[in-house]
Amino acid sequence: MAITSRVDLSQSQIDALSALVSGRVSVNESVLDSHGRDESAFPPVRPSAVVMAHSTEEVSKVLAYCNAEKIPVVAFGVGSSLEGHVLPLFGGISLDISEMDKILQISPDDLTVRVQAGVKRMALNKKLSSDGLFFSVDPGADATIGGMTSTGASGTTTVRYGSMRENVLKLTAVLADGTVMEVGRETRKLSAGYDLTRLIVGSEGTLAVVTEITLRVFGIPEKMAAAVCRFKSLEDGVQAAIAIVRSGVAIARCEFLDAQSIKNVNAHDGISLQEAPTLLFEFHGSPRGVEEDAQVVQEITSEFGGTDFEWTAEEGERRKLWQARHNAYWAGIAAHPGKRGISTDAAVPLSKLADAVAVSEKILSASGFPFSILGHVADGNFHTFIITDPKNPNELEEIRKITHEMTSAIIAMGGTCTGEHGIGAGKIDSLLEEAGSASVDIMKLIKKALDPNGILNPGKIFH
Amino acid sequence: MAITSRVDLSQSQIDALSALVSGRVSVNESVLDSHGRDESAFPPVRPSAVVMAHSTEEVSKVLAYCNAEKIPVVAFGVGSSLEGHVLPLFGGISLDISEMDKILQISPDDLTVRVQAGVKRMALNKKLSSDGLFFSVDPGADATIGGMTSTGASGTTTVRYGSMRENVLKLTAVLADGTVMEVGRETRKLSAGYDLTRLIVGSEGTLAVVTEITLRVFGIPEKMAAAVCRFKSLEDGVQAAIAIVRSGVAIARCEFLDAQSIKNVNAHDGISLQEAPTLLFEFHGSPRGVEEDAQVVQEITSEFGGTDFEWTAEEGERRKLWQARHNAYWAGIAAHPGKRGISTDAAVPLSKLADAVAVSEKILSASGFPFSILGHVADGNFHTFIITDPKNPNELEEIRKITHEMTSAIIAMGGTCTGEHGIGAGKIDSLLEEAGSASVDIMKLIKKALDPNGILNPGKIFH
Repeated sequence: MAITSRVDLSQSQIDALSALVSGRVSVNESVLDSHGRDESAFPPVRPSAVVMAHSTEEVSKVLAYCNAEKIPVVAFGVGSSLEGHVLPLFGGISLDISEMDKILQISPDDLTVRVQAGVKRMALNKKLSSDGLFFSVDPGADATIGGMTSTGASGTTTVRYGSMRENVLKLTAVLADGTVMEVGRETRKLSAGYDLTRLIVGSEGTLAVVTEITLRVFGIPEKMAAAVCRFKSLEDGVQAAIAIVRSGVAIARCEFLDAQSIKNVNAHDGISLQEAPTLLFEFHGSPRGVEEDAQVVQEITSEFGGTDFEWTAEEGERRKLWQARHNAYWAGIAAHPGKRGISTDAAVPLSKLADAVAVSEKILSASGFPFSILGHVADGNFHTFIITDPKNPNELEEIRKITHEMTSAIIAMGGTCTGEHGIGAGKIDSLLEEAGSASVDIMKLIKKALDPNGILNPGKIFH
Repeated sequence: MAITSRVDLSQSQIDALSALVSGRVSVNESVLDSHGRDESAFPPVRPSAVVMAHSTEEVSKVLAYCNAEKIPVVAFGVGSSLEGHVLPLFGGISLDISEMDKILQISPDDLTVRVQAGVKRMALNKKLSSDGLFFSVDPGADATIGGMTSTGASGTTTVRYGSMRENVLKLTAVLADGTVMEVGRETRKLSAGYDLTRLIVGSEGTLAVVTEITLRVFGIPEKMAAAVCRFKSLEDGVQAAIAIVRSGVAIARCEFLDAQSIKNVNAHDGISLQEAPTLLFEFHGSPRGVEEDAQVVQEITSEFGGTDFEWTAEEGERRKLWQARHNAYWAGIAAHPGKRGISTDAAVPLSKLADAVAVSEKILSASGFPFSILGHVADGNFHTFIITDPKNPNELEEIRKITHEMTSAIIAMGGTCTGEHGIGAGKIDSLLEEAGSASVDIMKLIKKALDPNGILNPGKIFH
């Protein structure tokens, strides 16, 4: 693509952009810093300027200008990416859409909601709850809907409700040249031409800047209950999870945490779960249905040596448990002050899950780095979480070798280097290894057709 | 695109193609005829030759040759399209993949199956059943999996199990220049680069020829049961269906048939359902769960004046009922010997469904053409089925006006001209009206990037 070296804006370019957004352009150092990092361990990179957009029209004008001037543009929400998505690797502007945070329309009758891209997940759910609705995609972080759309986010509830791919019905996207495009319809089924919605979802800001999204939402289940179960070994837990999926029982969440992850969340959240390989479940449905589902799951876990099956339909307990799970990432970091975490994101066919986890554990154990393993096992998706010292850049190189070794093993099993986090800046080689050059060449052709100057998030997904 | 007039093959071109596929090229008139029509009412168009492919390699060689020679290529399975997808509007070859009908691998542990594109839906389900599995997408016709992938098929079970979009995990696609590309992975989650799988699914043969597909499959439910319920008016039935969806009860199918549709299937299938607006349901789950679900549904239907709620868990009865539903299209034609049917395919947000059906009924009643209405109401998707005399081409023009009027009303409500059948040859203008020129221009850019000579299924989706 066209942009090959860092672009810094001239004063006249800054002035021109400023005129397009009523002066909302900043080159303040702390603002540049806060837009130059995310939750990944990649070294921070400052944008040349931060532009705060308040409308689709402003985004359109800014993009048209940047396209003409060949200025790189990276959209920014809250910076919760784990893969360096929002890092302005080639300078240019960070286009902050976090103040585009209006919930535009809740349609309880259609089970849809239309939002601006800067709306955050938790605020949305708070608002939806008064209509008895909830938005199901839950990656843990309180990300913006725009960011979740661009990265194709999923999370703990995907096993039941799907990822962003299934839950984005329609979106407004601004193309590199400023063209505003609406794709998708607010219908449950659509067969009208190419699926541009699914092309934009998960394109990591390289094809368009998403400014408005219509999401599918669900009625809050009559009853929700959680359960915990411990296993002797990681493999027993994983095998139990696979058997549960095969049984067809309707789980709403099914997460695995290894003993180290449990230790971390115990310390971080002040709880006292047994430090053993653990499965965490959630069930949604009618009171009787939830109870039946939990019973089936308990029976299956006991076949795999699961013990201490604890079940709670008490709301406070349930929330506390899942909050702890969501904090696992930060709990891992908190256990190692001053360190950062690197998260892998493998997904494999279910039949390969136990092998994949075992191989990963073996490689990590041999490495000597502190690590933990957890994940969305019912989807065949798991994360290893490796602790690194940002003051020692050699470690990063070493960890890169280890994760590459794990990833190659996963790909050879028919798996993927990323089930939900995306390619970002760090998995470009893995994508090529996994998808093959014919597929990546087609991705590049599409990129070139939609963004001929290559201004949108350069340096991500492919070179 | 490049191809603007009919292409007929020279003898040397036929010989060259013949050499690529061990002589499996035909210009026999009856073979040309059978590849020049589908289930739509479009006038038949013969291809110049029919090429029978037996492998991905052969498809690759044939496409490379046709691309170099600028010969149009339309892939052909069984010709069950309702939108003229397989009509070779610009001549060239019909590339028949129906003999690529091997089920390559059933993986019960992964709940996946890998098939060649010519495998038919019913044969696949027969084979899967011995492993206790089933493939859920059910458009009625016994289509090939390749055709269903290319049109992004859905059907009666989509409300519960999704469409092809959600159930194709991975596919092998041959591009216009013969490049063989594997896209997707056999994992439940994937976030690695652009979603090329969803781009190919539903692209109606205009971007690639699909030769192999890995599908997600499901365990056959422990219990399946069906129910029927009658309503005083079409609107009451539709409102009941909407209320059922909102209640969150897990229906596996929920179909609406108007009195005319019931009359047609009664005559066609020799059954004796009451000739009234009717909802047909199917429930999948545990014996107790199925009973509970049916009870909730019965309560809701009675709130909307539903009467004679009949429920059956008897397998033969259930199959007979759904077979009748599936035969509704042919039953409609059988009721008018010598005539053909034109099916519309509107989908709207649920809150607009009753209005959309009412508007359609009003327009059709005024037209004087025989018609019936039925559809997948829980998805907001319904079909009007209009009877036309193929010997009177003026009728087609008149019906085109009527369907255009209905479609414009649907689009104005936020709906789509096609929930599941696709654009094909007849809805090109509606796509533009619905999606807007910015979106359609992007589709064309993608088409041009992937098929610069425009050889793949020219004349479909856009001009």
